[in-house]
Amino acid sequence: MRPAVKSSLTKTSIRLADGRELIYFDEQPRSRDETDLRELPEPQMEIELRRDPLLDAQVVIASQRQDRVYLPPEDECPLCPSTLERSTEIPAADYDVVVFENRFPSFAAVPAELSLSDGGTTVVRSPAQGRCEVVCFTSQHETSFAELPPERVRTVLEVWVDRTVELGAVAGVEQVFCFENRGEEIGVTLHHPHGQIYAYPFVTPRTRKMLESALRHQAETGRNLFADVLAGERKARTRVVAEEDHWTAFVPAFARWPFEVHLYPNRQVPDLASLDDGERDEFSRLYGDVLRGLDLLFDLPMPYMAAVHQAPVRTGRDLAYLHLQVFSIRRSPGKLKYLASSESAMGVFINDVRPEEAAQMLRDAVELGRRG
Amino acid sequence: MRPAVKSSLTKTSIRLADGRELIYFDEQPRSRDETDLRELPEPQMEIELRRDPLLDAQVVIASQRQDRVYLPPEDECPLCPSTLERSTEIPAADYDVVVFENRFPSFAAVPAELSLSDGGTTVVRSPAQGRCEVVCFTSQHETSFAELPPERVRTVLEVWVDRTVELGAVAGVEQVFCFENRGEEIGVTLHHPHGQIYAYPFVTPRTRKMLESALRHQAETGRNLFADVLAGERKARTRVVAEEDHWTAFVPAFARWPFEVHLYPNRQVPDLASLDDGERDEFSRLYGDVLRGLDLLFDLPMPYMAAVHQAPVRTGRDLAYLHLQVFSIRRSPGKLKYLASSESAMGVFINDVRPEEAAQMLRDAVELGRRG
Repeated sequence: MRPAVKSSLTKTSIRLADGRELIYFDEQPRSRDETDLRELPEPQMEIELRRDPLLDAQVVIASQRQDRVYLPPEDECPLCPSTLERSTEIPAADYDVVVFENRFPSFAAVPAELSLSDGGTTVVRSPAQGRCEVVCFTSQHETSFAELPPERVRTVLEVWVDRTVELGAVAGVEQVFCFENRGEEIGVTLHHPHGQIYAYPFVTPRTRKMLESALRHQAETGRNLFADVLAGERKARTRVVAEEDHWTAFVPAFARWPFEVHLYPNRQVPDLASLDDGERDEFSRLYGDVLRGLDLLFDLPMPYMAAVHQAPVRTGRDLAYLHLQVFSIRRSPGKLKYLASSESAMGVFINDVRPEEAAQMLRDAVELGRRG
Repeated sequence: MRPAVKSSLTKTSIRLADGRELIYFDEQPRSRDETDLRELPEPQMEIELRRDPLLDAQVVIASQRQDRVYLPPEDECPLCPSTLERSTEIPAADYDVVVFENRFPSFAAVPAELSLSDGGTTVVRSPAQGRCEVVCFTSQHETSFAELPPERVRTVLEVWVDRTVELGAVAGVEQVFCFENRGEEIGVTLHHPHGQIYAYPFVTPRTRKMLESALRHQAETGRNLFADVLAGERKARTRVVAEEDHWTAFVPAFARWPFEVHLYPNRQVPDLASLDDGERDEFSRLYGDVLRGLDLLFDLPMPYMAAVHQAPVRTGRDLAYLHLQVFSIRRSPGKLKYLASSESAMGVFINDVRPEEAAQMLRDAVELGRRG
């Protein structure tokens, strides 16, 4: 049962010049009648799925992405609002939060036909059906998610809920993944604060694995695995970064990354849509605190990935437990963690920072940010 | 049955100042009586394994590695031979191939006691027992594996065989992994041509997954999965980079990385030790050709990871199929592939280069190298 949370956002859907959808999520009612004046080529959808029979996983082959925009100068940012002089991806002169279909997607509603032969018959290929969206968190170019006020974080959360529900209802979509990549160090090609949403046509390998573990744990103990992990961290306390009424943020004992924070609601829910009003409000404050803490760790903008782990659309919904995973590859002011052969070829992660130490540093940084 | 391949290498084991073992593998008989004159602190072994119950995997927490040497100037390279003025990790004034225990290991014969409490009882911790070795491929600082003559590649292969057999016989070791990380772009901290060997106290997640798939495939078809993948690629031909009497190099149809080459012996064997003399000889030429091809692709030293996938010590030996996986994160002269949220948090890889295109480029580059 999804509680009916009243959203005061005004939602307006338009089409960009090449047919892609763009949706304004306005915090105050606005009429949105600007049109996209650009001449855009039809999006190239040279994407397909290939099944890796050794690792039992789908790989996306998306060759048109080679051409995507890479670190443009600020005055050519495609995520800033349009001006009289320059048309961007967003036709309006201002916006709160905006979502649009990615011009260089990894999944699309209508991928190109699998016309190119692979020259053999042993490879299982299928269309990369799904959808990739870009979420602009703010019209301000020179800021970051961590600097957004709680009201805007709440808006982003409502947008994530909206997109999770809408994309989850699209035929063939099996999992909706909201995430943010931040920082050049992890290959972010645009500085403007933004995230992305992938609607996958399958349940992802990590989610499948977690749900398998949860199923086994439930059969063995009768309990929920994620809830047990959370309870263990709340009991141990040594890795807890913040403990609130509705949420707990902690560094898992088995963290793979130098600085990795997991945020769990204290109540088991499968997805963002299932959060109640109080949980949403508290999250909107806590999440900003955690992100500011990351930036304060070394007094440097932290490169990070933020991943919202939600239940798949159709499977494992009773086993899943919504949580956010925010992790950085920076292990010290001058050093990054690279995934080398042990991680990339064998799946064995080596973490150079003790989770207990990382948690202590993060607790202090979050505290500092709250006082500051 | 391991064929008795006569190795003409002279093997001499010594102890470094802090007790670590170093082994010279000399192509001509030599006496090795140099001693390590340094005063070295006792190695810190603050390493442990923690089990991730969600992903059912062991994570190594190795906090002492934070202090390891990072890109020293050439005249401070710890992998060059020692001189009268300067003592390095290798006491001798010259060497062919040398192997020694890593000073900053992720696994060790005697890890530190798990003295530090994690403050809770829900986390499964265990000693990171095993061994990490460094393999110096040549005493020459300014060269690369690709530039080694076939005779030296053969020596390295014999060293890999020796270490696989020896480490596989150590109590508790379940898998031996020979690999090379090359290039600053993937975080290599020392330029001197070298690789590493990890003796893991468990079967790694990727290997477990591959063997599970192979078991299922065998039950369903009666055939070996790896052999079927190889046969499919040899039949399709579009992704074959080189096809020799004993070996085939190809880009898998489901490649995850922009340039990824797999080298399979045409005959199914579980590990390097099972290769016969002809297979070893041909490999020693082909592998160099492939690595030179990678460097010729963009006329730039390619950052790469090279992973030798061998059967575990005790399990799945009839299902496994020795192969090498060489892959680069460079997708064009100016661009790298980064693992962002889809890969790192969901396990869904997006490859921007079509495997057929990558194979064509690699075929041409290997051909160019052979002519050049």
